[in-house]
Amino acid sequence: MKIIRLIDEMKKEMVRRRSRGDCIGLVPTMGYLHQGHLSLIRESVRKNSCTVVSVYVNPTQFGPGEDYERYPRDLDRDAKILTDAGVDYLFIPSNEDMYPTGYKTYVEVHDLQDVMCGASRPGHFRGVCTVVLKLFHITKPHKAYFGQKDAQQAVILKKMADDLNMEVKISVLPIVRERDGLALSSRNSLLNPDQRETALCLYQSLQLAEKLFEQGERNSSKIINLMKNHIKKKKGAHIDYVVIVNKNNLESMAKIRKGETLIAGAVYIGKVRLIDNVVI
Amino acid sequence: MKIIRLIDEMKKEMVRRRSRGDCIGLVPTMGYLHQGHLSLIRESVRKNSCTVVSVYVNPTQFGPGEDYERYPRDLDRDAKILTDAGVDYLFIPSNEDMYPTGYKTYVEVHDLQDVMCGASRPGHFRGVCTVVLKLFHITKPHKAYFGQKDAQQAVILKKMADDLNMEVKISVLPIVRERDGLALSSRNSLLNPDQRETALCLYQSLQLAEKLFEQGERNSSKIINLMKNHIKKKKGAHIDYVVIVNKNNLESMAKIRKGETLIAGAVYIGKVRLIDNVVI
Repeated sequence: MKIIRLIDEMKKEMVRRRSRGDCIGLVPTMGYLHQGHLSLIRESVRKNSCTVVSVYVNPTQFGPGEDYERYPRDLDRDAKILTDAGVDYLFIPSNEDMYPTGYKTYVEVHDLQDVMCGASRPGHFRGVCTVVLKLFHITKPHKAYFGQKDAQQAVILKKMADDLNMEVKISVLPIVRERDGLALSSRNSLLNPDQRETALCLYQSLQLAEKLFEQGERNSSKIINLMKNHIKKKKGAHIDYVVIVNKNNLESMAKIRKGETLIAGAVYIGKVRLIDNVVI
Repeated sequence: MKIIRLIDEMKKEMVRRRSRGDCIGLVPTMGYLHQGHLSLIRESVRKNSCTVVSVYVNPTQFGPGEDYERYPRDLDRDAKILTDAGVDYLFIPSNEDMYPTGYKTYVEVHDLQDVMCGASRPGHFRGVCTVVLKLFHITKPHKAYFGQKDAQQAVILKKMADDLNMEVKISVLPIVRERDGLALSSRNSLLNPDQRETALCLYQSLQLAEKLFEQGERNSSKIINLMKNHIKKKKGAHIDYVVIVNKNNLESMAKIRKGETLIAGAVYIGKVRLIDNVVI
């Protein structure tokens, strides 16, 4: 595996690989890799002749007071995991190269960026879209892989690529969970054992929603209230949002319709903000 | 010359030409072509094996009450001019294809977009950046050509391409003028004979600035005041702005420095807004 730190070097390498006829898969990550990332990476290695994984904790998607500084990092471990997985390139750009002094250009996907995580993290998706557009231009992938855990991010990035007439095909892969159901996240490493226990309440509330749906309940407000009640019972859990929306346009749905509905939530466990979702 | 109206067809054609090893030049225009456009087009035809000219009056760069509806259009004449110039592709996308219902994605180049023309046309450069980024993705040019008359646009688009790590090389070609000095513009066709005469005041004020500089004057405020006085003497001319700025970052310069300075103005002649500039 080749490790590349400079944008210009990455660009040249990808021009070379493209002109050789390679099919390029990109997996953008913030590192501290877990099995969720690995499911994306394995899929890319399987489906493309050249896989690039970027590890970059992107400062423009963190707001003031968020966890940019304490976001977990372990580059040596990541590099080993990626080598073992058969990745061709590990791209580790620097902030100075990605956002040099005087950087001014940002991409926004209106409306979609303002709801759910966007409502509590203003500017977050602007940062995500901007860095992903840059990574697309740098690595020129045929395919890019994202996780369903970040459901809103996936909807927004697909919309961005489509609106901007980009060639890249975006694949969204299922959430990978711990045995007890907790969605894998690099941020789970920031939880103490009690918090780890508490964190399960979000997944449980999603299971509750699925059960209610199976029992015939279609009323979103009712389901949301029961989900919130479940989470509120847990000490140390603080609800950011629980929503039931159309899985494609993120618009609120008063009634759940099978095949179209995303039930998603964000919960603070202490200072750690976790998200999870199910598609009905 | 092949005329293409559908984005998907244009994309496929350009993938084919790129893979054949062609060097692609793009000249984005709003049509109603004049010798200014033609200087860009001839340069592209000379320097590239494949030239694409887009003719698209982009609605997102016009504000409410601006001249989107009355912007001059003559597609038959444009097509004939382009055929004669040896252009390979004329791309004429529709609004429905460029901005389908539910379109949401916009690109902004902060700060640079807020001054000069951006101050009186809020959202204008957001529209310009967005449509040009889309055209870049659709046509995948190696080079793109823009006119120095739109000096601020050129600075912003170069910044956008650079910030977003794009491959395309942006060339900016000199202003083409009528014999009496009026900068060519499709909007000149909207002037009646009296207004056409009045319109010259902007160019004259720029000539005055150059003369003052040659005589040793370096103080920007003094020069701007004398330029404004010249324009104000003309009945029917209404100043939007006159500025003296750094030609690369568009920041105001209190003193002119040779090789670094852009003197630019915008003037309303009746309802028609004209721009012009010189680099010192």
